[in-house]
Amino acid sequence: MKTFYSFDDVTDLSKLSSLALKFKRAPLHKKSIGEEKTLGLVFLNPSLRTRISTQKAAMNLGVQTIILNIEKEGWGLETEEGTVMKGTAGEHIKEAAAVLGEYCDLIGIRSFATLKDKKEDYLDKVFTGFREYCNVPIINLESTLYHPLQGFADLITILETKTSTKPKIVLTWAPHPKSLPHAVPNSFCKWMLGAGFDLSIACPKGYELDPQIVGPIKQLNNQNLALEGADYVYAKNWSSIENYGVNSCTDPSWMLDDKKMGLTKQGKFMHCLPIRRNVVATDSVIDSTTSLIKNQANNRVYATQAILYNLIQGLNDYE
Amino acid sequence: MKTFYSFDDVTDLSKLSSLALKFKRAPLHKKSIGEEKTLGLVFLNPSLRTRISTQKAAMNLGVQTIILNIEKEGWGLETEEGTVMKGTAGEHIKEAAAVLGEYCDLIGIRSFATLKDKKEDYLDKVFTGFREYCNVPIINLESTLYHPLQGFADLITILETKTSTKPKIVLTWAPHPKSLPHAVPNSFCKWMLGAGFDLSIACPKGYELDPQIVGPIKQLNNQNLALEGADYVYAKNWSSIENYGVNSCTDPSWMLDDKKMGLTKQGKFMHCLPIRRNVVATDSVIDSTTSLIKNQANNRVYATQAILYNLIQGLNDYE
Amino acid sequence: MKTFYSFDDVTDLSKLSSLALKFKRAPLHKKSIGEEKTLGLVFLNPSLRTRISTQKAAMNLGVQTIILNIEKEGWGLETEEGTVMKGTAGEHIKEAAAVLGEYCDLIGIRSFATLKDKKEDYLDKVFTGFREYCNVPIINLESTLYHPLQGFADLITILETKTSTKPKIVLTWAPHPKSLPHAVPNSFCKWMLGAGFDLSIACPKGYELDPQIVGPIKQLNNQNLALEGADYVYAKNWSSIENYGVNSCTDPSWMLDDKKMGLTKQGKFMHCLPIRRNVVATDSVIDSTTSLIKNQANNRVYATQAILYNLIQGLNDYE
Repeated sequence: MKTFYSFDDVTDLSKLSSLALKFKRAPLHKKSIGEEKTLGLVFLNPSLRTRISTQKAAMNLGVQTIILNIEKEGWGLETEEGTVMKGTAGEHIKEAAAVLGEYCDLIGIRSFATLKDKKEDYLDKVFTGFREYCNVPIINLESTLYHPLQGFADLITILETKTSTKPKIVLTWAPHPKSLPHAVPNSFCKWMLGAGFDLSIACPKGYELDPQIVGPIKQLNNQNLALEGADYVYAKNWSSIENYGVNSCTDPSWMLDDKKMGLTKQGKFMHCLPIRRNVVATDSVIDSTTSLIKNQANNRVYATQAILYNLIQGLNDYE
Repeated sequence: MKTFYSFDDVTDLSKLSSLALKFKRAPLHKKSIGEEKTLGLVFLNPSLRTRISTQKAAMNLGVQTIILNIEKEGWGLETEEGTVMKGTAGEHIKEAAAVLGEYCDLIGIRSFATLKDKKEDYLDKVFTGFREYCNVPIINLESTLYHPLQGFADLITILETKTSTKPKIVLTWAPHPKSLPHAVPNSFCKWMLGAGFDLSIACPKGYELDPQIVGPIKQLNNQNLALEGADYVYAKNWSSIENYGVNSCTDPSWMLDDKKMGLTKQGKFMHCLPIRRNVVATDSVIDSTTSLIKNQANNRVYATQAILYNLIQGLNDYE
Repeated sequence: MKTFYSFDDVTDLSKLSSLALKFKRAPLHKKSIGEEKTLGLVFLNPSLRTRISTQKAAMNLGVQTIILNIEKEGWGLETEEGTVMKGTAGEHIKEAAAVLGEYCDLIGIRSFATLKDKKEDYLDKVFTGFREYCNVPIINLESTLYHPLQGFADLITILETKTSTKPKIVLTWAPHPKSLPHAVPNSFCKWMLGAGFDLSIACPKGYELDPQIVGPIKQLNNQNLALEGADYVYAKNWSSIENYGVNSCTDPSWMLDDKKMGLTKQGKFMHCLPIRRNVVATDSVIDSTTSLIKNQANNRVYATQAILYNLIQGLNDYE
């Protein structure tokens, strides 16, 4: 693995998951593999879980981490080809990526969707620019379109807790005061489908995820119907694709509460965090014993550790 | 020790002080104790001494540090119970603390008083929220009410330099262009009283510290009278408790100058830093040979190192 | 070496360059020399290359790094002597420097020119204040007047690639939308002259560098004439010294393009980065095979590593 951009870069999901779970049992069993390696983490957007869990994962492998809040601590990035750089951006991504690639052995980068121009967002220019120019293995810390470290952590959380081979999983849209990107739900779909689980989506009309990205998943506009018999309920807000970036629906009836969770088969509650309490889901759902949100956050470390291992060493010799 | 919130968490002051002074003589004599441990430092406010001295203290014990300027690099924190999170705060302290506790073995947190609502400030919600939800040992890097790492460093600075068993110490209010919190003077009082020293306070009328917190210390409104015969003079501004958060007094006659220091018994000058020169005290006082401000700053490392040791290992086996 | 402020602190250029190039071949051959040492990096301004390459250089020597974006994460700095600190600056440089010197074994500091008051800028108060008060070896990460780590990296880049003993080097002014400081061109001149190379400057009238700083170098106002027969072309914008800080010339005819590079003797293109594409130089020049910009950035690590070694250990025993 030379790039970890999305689920599509995974060549052996079974081995990768097994490695992550092994790291969970023995976080330091490969603690020297990253010695003399440096991981650069480049943030264009806020990050708590990704920032800290990735540092922790790196430490567990002996990898040193350098953090750069690039547009606050460095220079604004230009991503256009051939542009005359007279504006506010002080550095082209070509140089920024190439230079960081000279200093680091691996690079992680976070750059959210702007939600203003679908065509632009779909080009995922910051990630793809870094991938093209940095010349070292690169990890997606959440790009315009994907958040694969989250998707992978979500998967291993389900692998650890599922009681049937093919659990029924529902990804449901939930309200939020702001317009949010699609990286998390996109990635969740790809990892769930990749694992062969029974996934369906519930969302208000007009909020369907892009089939070009998430594939031919059943997308229902009736949340109650979708929730029936679910083993896992993954709540998440996202803005409209159709009416790109708009979040005009704040219908509180989509909030997950105990009554809705009662429709499921003692369904476990999942969310990637941060979560808006009593907007996305009620306190009682979030704090219930079936809530897996802390497990998901905790598993971020081991998912990332497996990916770093894979990028450094490949997936052979991982025992 | 599972929490270091204030002086009240100290069970054996004599052992703790002796450990700090031992670390001062031999900073690396326990350099492996923290191996494979991670300390998360969470800042909601600026920090220079606390930030750097705590990193240094951690390094001296082999502990790895992860820094998070949480509201700039992560998400704004909500601290209210049961609130509908439609505002600017993107993450509830319940999740933020729990998640950081999943990644780190110890957590330090700084969150200043807002000085707007006394009742709210006195709840010290960010610290107490983290303590409740993070599930790992936690260190106060200055909360609304206390700055115990400063108080402890101040104590060992006096222990190192005192020439009598029970030195006479004066904590005096001094002018400042801004309204400042009470954490430093509160903690100073608690540590001085805990050590059994002779402490009195000098402050303008209406600026008395809260007796509920600092105990029944003599609080004089006549600075000259208070300074007479002092062995140590600790200068510090704080806003009014009575007229909560107000700093209407900027009377320059409260500034410490050579003449005032002349009232003392060759009194040593102390301040926690940062200090406003020629507002709180004159250059000549700050730069005099009896000024201990650099010693106090230096001792921050060893005070913190002793606290980290105590949280990791307890106070047995510290030789 | 106790201070690395500018080229003038170099006592043995030949040994120093040779050490840097040795580190390039074997970055870890002195990986224990910095064990138990801490390098504090203090930034008042943005930094990408300097920030990351210095961290990497420190890692290569086993030195631990602590980063402080001092005015964002700490307090605003006051540099005036004797001032009554009632303004926005919360801490005097005397205390900030002294305290950081208590915590760190070496300090690096970046503080750009303001370009508002030449006399003030020429005093280089932040660097000189830190040098005076921090009491530990100190490294200039770009001050008002000099950027010696860049100058040294530029030198070793030329040493590695030159095909004659005394290459002809042209430092040419180039357009830029903003007013920029003189630290990079000043340092470039000092290192090139120090190495005994044939350096000339091309700039629009009124943009001559200060002869008091860069010495008696030929400064031509005819760029084409200057470029003739050059082995190296170093492009860089700077504001006027004469009309201090003004950048009224944006004449695009000074941009480096293939035609201008054609005047040289297959001249190699250099720039310190970040570079404004198609303003300072065209894409085709920047991306050409004779462009050394990535080499320069890469060499920042080894130049800095040699300086750190020198500050820790001196230049004996460097084999």
